[in-house]
Amino acid sequence: MPFVSIRILEGHTQKRKNEISRRVTEAISEVAELPMDKIWVVIEDVPGSDWFVGGEPTREPKRL
Amino acid sequence: MPFVSIRILEGHTQKRKNEISRRVTEAISEVAELPMDKIWVVIEDVPGSDWFVGGEPTREPKRL
Amino acid sequence: MPFVSIRILEGHTQKRKNEISRRVTEAISEVAELPMDKIWVVIEDVPGSDWFVGGEPTREPKRL
Amino acid sequence: MPFVSIRILEGHTQKRKNEISRRVTEAISEVAELPMDKIWVVIEDVPGSDWFVGGEPTREPKRL
Amino acid sequence: MPFVSIRILEGHTQKRKNEISRRVTEAISEVAELPMDKIWVVIEDVPGSDWFVGGEPTREPKRL
Amino acid sequence: MPFVSIRILEGHTQKRKNEISRRVTEAISEVAELPMDKIWVVIEDVPGSDWFVGGEPTREPKRL
Repeated sequence: MPFVSIRILEGHTQKRKNEISRRVTEAISEVAELPMDKIWVVIEDVPGSDWFVGGEPTREPKRL
Repeated sequence: MPFVSIRILEGHTQKRKNEISRRVTEAISEVAELPMDKIWVVIEDVPGSDWFVGGEPTREPKRL
Repeated sequence: MPFVSIRILEGHTQKRKNEISRRVTEAISEVAELPMDKIWVVIEDVPGSDWFVGGEPTREPKRL
Repeated sequence: MPFVSIRILEGHTQKRKNEISRRVTEAISEVAELPMDKIWVVIEDVPGSDWFVGGEPTREPKRL
Repeated sequence: MPFVSIRILEGHTQKRKNEISRRVTEAISEVAELPMDKIWVVIEDVPGSDWFVGGEPTREPKRL
Repeated sequence: MPFVSIRILEGHTQKRKNEISRRVTEAISEVAELPMDKIWVVIEDVPGSDWFVGGEPTREPKRL
């Protein structure tokens, strides 16, 4: 019954998102001994101009 | 003073969102004995390609 | 597949929480035409000393 | 290591967002005695049609 | 710079939480090509009496 | 109408929380030109054992 929210800078491909979600779901399923379909993962894209580190916007995903 | 966040697959009409929010607000107001205007509801649309169940994206709101 | 988070000042009884969650779930199920068991609701109790309105903590649930 | 999420009605300029984030980060850094770069702030724009107060959508940022 | 929130029914051991967080962090780091220390994971324990599926509280982690 | 959630390692005093919330509220009020009482701030304490950076728990607030 876990609910996972992943906030990440926008720009990652659907393929990467799929892979991240699959591996996150497998990890929780295996370690917590829960069926895969009880695990929900939501990926929330955040524009670099809305994510601030040290008070400064992070504009360029590449530099991270 | 409750704050309600509803993450839902995108695609529902404004009319449905209004109806959901109205009923959710009324329920909390009546049961918790709080004035309606102290209750905030935010609906957060999530694309099917960003919502994963069992590690798989849920693409088609219709099938849900 | 909606996920609902309700942040509310702590102090409400389990009976009230059950009633709120039941009515919220029914509202979403009926309006969005989704099966009840696809709707998850999490109630997150917040101490009055950690909830600030206008920069001031809200200590007394009764007064709300 | 604080993580700050600010949900706000959409429509504020980038300049305002930068200023808000800078001041929020400074406040936490000074009061909690943490280095600026350990503080992440995410601003999450919410359309007025998805933000409900008292069960009604808040459409016009200007009126707030 | 991803921020991951994992809401899970309370009752899992610290060892399990450590293992879940390690694997989730590795998955994101490898797939998104980000340094491990730019990834924050927060595990948020939820009592079964505050987590509702289909409008009913889920009291017993074992049964999940 | 902003809603601010601040996740922070537990252990900060109420006085610090009050000061952070006051300053965060003032900053948003002044920059976004919103009345103070339309701004809600919730501080969410996270135990160090539940907050992971680089896949490792952060146990000691002092070291941060």
